[in-house]
Amino acid sequence: MDIITKMTKDTIKPALASGFKDYLPDEMIPRQKMLDTIRAVFERFGYAPLDTPGLEKEEILTGGDPDFKMNIFKARINESGEDMALRFDLTVPLARVMAGNPELKKPFRRYQIGKVWRGERPQAGRYREFVQCDADIVGAKSMLADAEIIAIIYTAMKDLGIKNFEIRINNRKILNNLYAIADFDKEKTNMVLRAMDKKDKQGWQKVEEELKNEGLSDKSISLIKEFTSKSETDDPELNEIASYLDAMDIPRSAWKIDLSVARGLGYYTGTVFETILTDLPSIGSVCSGGRYDGLTARFGGDSLPATGTSFGIDRLYAALSELGLVNATASIAKVIVLNFDEQSLPKCLSVSSSLRNNNISVELYQGSETSLTGQLTYAVKKGFSAAVIIGADEVDKNTVQIKNLKTKEQNEISDSDVITEIYKII
Amino acid sequence: MDIITKMTKDTIKPALASGFKDYLPDEMIPRQKMLDTIRAVFERFGYAPLDTPGLEKEEILTGGDPDFKMNIFKARINESGEDMALRFDLTVPLARVMAGNPELKKPFRRYQIGKVWRGERPQAGRYREFVQCDADIVGAKSMLADAEIIAIIYTAMKDLGIKNFEIRINNRKILNNLYAIADFDKEKTNMVLRAMDKKDKQGWQKVEEELKNEGLSDKSISLIKEFTSKSETDDPELNEIASYLDAMDIPRSAWKIDLSVARGLGYYTGTVFETILTDLPSIGSVCSGGRYDGLTARFGGDSLPATGTSFGIDRLYAALSELGLVNATASIAKVIVLNFDEQSLPKCLSVSSSLRNNNISVELYQGSETSLTGQLTYAVKKGFSAAVIIGADEVDKNTVQIKNLKTKEQNEISDSDVITEIYKII
Repeated sequence: MDIITKMTKDTIKPALASGFKDYLPDEMIPRQKMLDTIRAVFERFGYAPLDTPGLEKEEILTGGDPDFKMNIFKARINESGEDMALRFDLTVPLARVMAGNPELKKPFRRYQIGKVWRGERPQAGRYREFVQCDADIVGAKSMLADAEIIAIIYTAMKDLGIKNFEIRINNRKILNNLYAIADFDKEKTNMVLRAMDKKDKQGWQKVEEELKNEGLSDKSISLIKEFTSKSETDDPELNEIASYLDAMDIPRSAWKIDLSVARGLGYYTGTVFETILTDLPSIGSVCSGGRYDGLTARFGGDSLPATGTSFGIDRLYAALSELGLVNATASIAKVIVLNFDEQSLPKCLSVSSSLRNNNISVELYQGSETSLTGQLTYAVKKGFSAAVIIGADEVDKNTVQIKNLKTKEQNEISDSDVITEIYKII
Repeated sequence: MDIITKMTKDTIKPALASGFKDYLPDEMIPRQKMLDTIRAVFERFGYAPLDTPGLEKEEILTGGDPDFKMNIFKARINESGEDMALRFDLTVPLARVMAGNPELKKPFRRYQIGKVWRGERPQAGRYREFVQCDADIVGAKSMLADAEIIAIIYTAMKDLGIKNFEIRINNRKILNNLYAIADFDKEKTNMVLRAMDKKDKQGWQKVEEELKNEGLSDKSISLIKEFTSKSETDDPELNEIASYLDAMDIPRSAWKIDLSVARGLGYYTGTVFETILTDLPSIGSVCSGGRYDGLTARFGGDSLPATGTSFGIDRLYAALSELGLVNATASIAKVIVLNFDEQSLPKCLSVSSSLRNNNISVELYQGSETSLTGQLTYAVKKGFSAAVIIGADEVDKNTVQIKNLKTKEQNEISDSDVITEIYKII
């Protein structure tokens, strides 16, 4: 609110740009709660907040690659000045921070929750702006770091109230040898991995079709399918991770080794993982990541080992809604103090203050309903737990009426008991 | 972490664009705490979170005004497509949301914490990207709404630990008549108010100079000074606010009516206020706002009354630092579990998990120091409160060593007492 705006008489259509979305309170309240839950888990594991700008020099984001094909958002001031672009993820900025601040103690654990932008064509449910929620540990080579990231995912899923999920773990080094095992051209490895990544959402048949189109023989395809169906391996890195997960008391039912997990991306160098909600497999992975030991090298100096994860906030929110774990509500406060009698307003204000001083969220009614009934209807509709009612009688007697809006029970209590009584209801 | 990046061999300088800033953990941890404190106050008053995009159609932000002079950031995809711009505040987007969602129940209370961008020339301490932290109530005409916003400011200042502050309150309607009282050309009103707004940071002498340069007579200047030095008024709106603040038990020492408060901005239509830290007056207002009853009219339909406030996060952070109210720390966790003995690692992992399950933040040491002493030095430097030490002896005896890193006291305790003992220290 501190910019001089000169307003014109022409009215402007209050429309959003295509591919962008508002989060109104009924959606934002549970969404914020979900983000707070994940953030609390990050902090419990010792991951500290980092904030980097929404805009960066374009070459930082693209890696200076002339072939860079991604649709990034360019941004500039008044047609002049530096070329900047909006970040498309939080991992490249982390790599820049690590390279630019060599004094940061390693391993460096950070989380970041922030908006990112993609200049893609908008599709149903796919936005040009969305929130990423990442935790990464940079500078730790040991598989202990990968196990810690997997433990974070496990804990976050539990804390979000999700009962049935499965963290599927693999190692890219195993898949990098797939060409030898399945007898195809080594050059085709990245293509094969990208195709395999579509397995969960589109099914194996689709993957097979794609591999066939790319010229792989039936035998190769069959060998790929056979090899990646195994859920056991003697891979020392995966076995090490397994032993750490056991030591952290993470139940075997929550994760498994799955040689078909590829993650389509080019930069993974070791562990990769994805998280499937077993009640909603079609939604795809809600949380994925892995080890990427090369990214900081873009900015010179020594390449730092790194591993991390990103929570798919929009998919997670959709999943929580579908699982009935979202309480949509338009009210952030639990208690409403009604306000229908001018004479009683000072006491309404005083009671509101004293509730807030006791850490209770309170809305003082300021709408256009002037009757008790009208205000109570509003209170029920907006989802408050309790209403405080104060009229002339209550002012005289040093009491208030408290109505439990779920049970409809109403009690008159003395002023000194308000806090205790409200705590009982909310 | 889910974008395909093709990396080049050329290294890129890890530099930020000019006017942008990273917040590394030692700064971001207390900054985040400050934002959380303010957010909790907003929620305690029943203000719900709203999120709007960082990018909007350009005409939404500029109001379609061809004279619009502000340096906004333009953004577009691949040189084609719609013209968009980065938001420069959170108030214009709020006005768009209100106009575009007429079904939203009024009064609508929302808070929003988010980045905004200004294409200004960077100056010392002035960035092109910064965070705004706003609370507004839309659709309430009554002075009760203004009083509620002032109560939010009061509560936030207290909760931030600031002892000496003063909320200065005025009403633009009084100042709009200043031209008649002080005998100057009515057209010069906005200029006079903008000049007056510089009083706190630059002093009255500077204001007088500016008014003189703009052609005001000595007599007018003297009348302006005389009128705005009064701290009493019979203005009914200010008196109404005062009565509500009293009813909310907000002490008179925390606020005063100050007829010199102008706020330079054009869109205020009633109450205006600013907040000065009396120990650091030169820093200027850390929290300001007021009533702006016309903004939604930009988007057609009925104009909605609105009042709100914006916390100056960067100034507040600087002030809290100067007042010694910021604990700079590079560690988000209070407890570190050391890790110098491979045989004991499983127990270290298990103890870490059990602490975290009890809501205690724990970092498991993963650095390069292999000795106990080296790891303890790291733990002290990074500001942990307690270290958990587990070696072969402790594994055998079902105990752990807990070192209080402030008092240097170390105790061996049985496994079952770890949680209790740690709670005592942190």
